[in-house]
Amino acid sequence: LQKLGKADETRDSAFEELVANFNKQMTEGSKVQRDLKAYLAAVKAMHEASRRLQDCLADMYEPDWFGKEELDALVEDTDTLWLDYHQNLTDKSLLGLDTYLAQFPEIKARVAKRERKLVDFDSARHHFASLQKGKKKDDAKIAKPAALLEMAAPSWAQGLISAHQVAQTNLSYNQAEEELGRAQRIFEELNVELQDELPVLWDSRVGVYVGTFQSLAGHQEKFHREMSKLSHNLNDIMTKLEEQRQL
Amino acid sequence: LQKLGKADETRDSAFEELVANFNKQMTEGSKVQRDLKAYLAAVKAMHEASRRLQDCLADMYEPDWFGKEELDALVEDTDTLWLDYHQNLTDKSLLGLDTYLAQFPEIKARVAKRERKLVDFDSARHHFASLQKGKKKDDAKIAKPAALLEMAAPSWAQGLISAHQVAQTNLSYNQAEEELGRAQRIFEELNVELQDELPVLWDSRVGVYVGTFQSLAGHQEKFHREMSKLSHNLNDIMTKLEEQRQL
Repeated sequence: LQKLGKADETRDSAFEELVANFNKQMTEGSKVQRDLKAYLAAVKAMHEASRRLQDCLADMYEPDWFGKEELDALVEDTDTLWLDYHQNLTDKSLLGLDTYLAQFPEIKARVAKRERKLVDFDSARHHFASLQKGKKKDDAKIAKPAALLEMAAPSWAQGLISAHQVAQTNLSYNQAEEELGRAQRIFEELNVELQDELPVLWDSRVGVYVGTFQSLAGHQEKFHREMSKLSHNLNDIMTKLEEQRQL
Repeated sequence: LQKLGKADETRDSAFEELVANFNKQMTEGSKVQRDLKAYLAAVKAMHEASRRLQDCLADMYEPDWFGKEELDALVEDTDTLWLDYHQNLTDKSLLGLDTYLAQFPEIKARVAKRERKLVDFDSARHHFASLQKGKKKDDAKIAKPAALLEMAAPSWAQGLISAHQVAQTNLSYNQAEEELGRAQRIFEELNVELQDELPVLWDSRVGVYVGTFQSLAGHQEKFHREMSKLSHNLNDIMTKLEEQRQL
């Protein structure tokens, strides 16, 4: 078991790296989620401020001024564009991220459970190791008295006394061995699962970041392109009004 | 003066319309200024939220991922674009509006002064009108007693007594007339000034609105156009990263 212990230690340091990655990935993901939510709140705030400013112009705009109808339509179109942008980011970019992050708590719980089962396994191993050490001493002790006892005993009883003592020692030794086997199986099952899953999860982060920011960039590109056109139209309306003013 | 009073009343109702426009224009202008400032604050907040979200991506982006350098450059370019947009709106759109609104307090003070001078003028007019009324009565009264007095007086004194009384009445009458003239001149001077200036100021609002919103629309158009391009670039970087991931 000394050799196994050495191997386990090595294996656990590799696992610790997986857990460090898992934690890093969870922290990163939560930060993207938080920052995206803050961005969405800012989009909403800028939408409202933009709406108020355009409403202000529309309210001042007198009915006989050139472009009154175009302006009213423009205010509505701008409003719709902002609403769609916010909705798309919420439905597409944020939702994908939410789904990705939703799997972390369950995995985190299993990582913690593996930690507890490793403690159980280690304790079973130490118990078994101490029994094993004691058994060797007992075997040595029994070997001597048994020899003296056997010399005094009739020949038919020789071997039986030591066999009885050995059997008693073997009983708790075997129980401990079974316990060790069970603890190891429970731990190994969790360990193998996580050793399979964590690297896959770690690799999946790249796809999630790509998905989130590609979706964000796509909606941003469309939103800003359309907004640029609407701004151009507002510029045109203002030019018409300026021409009317100079008549 | 009855006729003049009638004319003044008409003139004042026309002036009240000018003042109503002036107040409307001041309220409108202040609202545009307030809404533009709120929009600028929202631009700043969205800039910060956008910057945090992009920094978050750049921080997660590992050095060996495709497009790391392009991403870092993009984050800087996006930041500069936001800063320029905010600065341009502050320097151009808002500053023009500030200059326009800065002239209102002084004109408002002169409108209030004209109001006070109109009260002085009215009071001088009523004082003079009551003296004028009194003088007519006095003239009638003096005419009779003077006739009796003159009959009893030596012929050389005839005419002098009534002349003395008439002179005394005339003194306060003349003072009131002068006072009225002075009050009228002060009022008229302010009145003529404001009657010239207020319609010009009222008409100027259209040009100011055109200037403010044309400048705003122009900067918006440019900002959104450039931002759409940067979003396109971010999309490209994400596509490259996705390709690397699938290798």
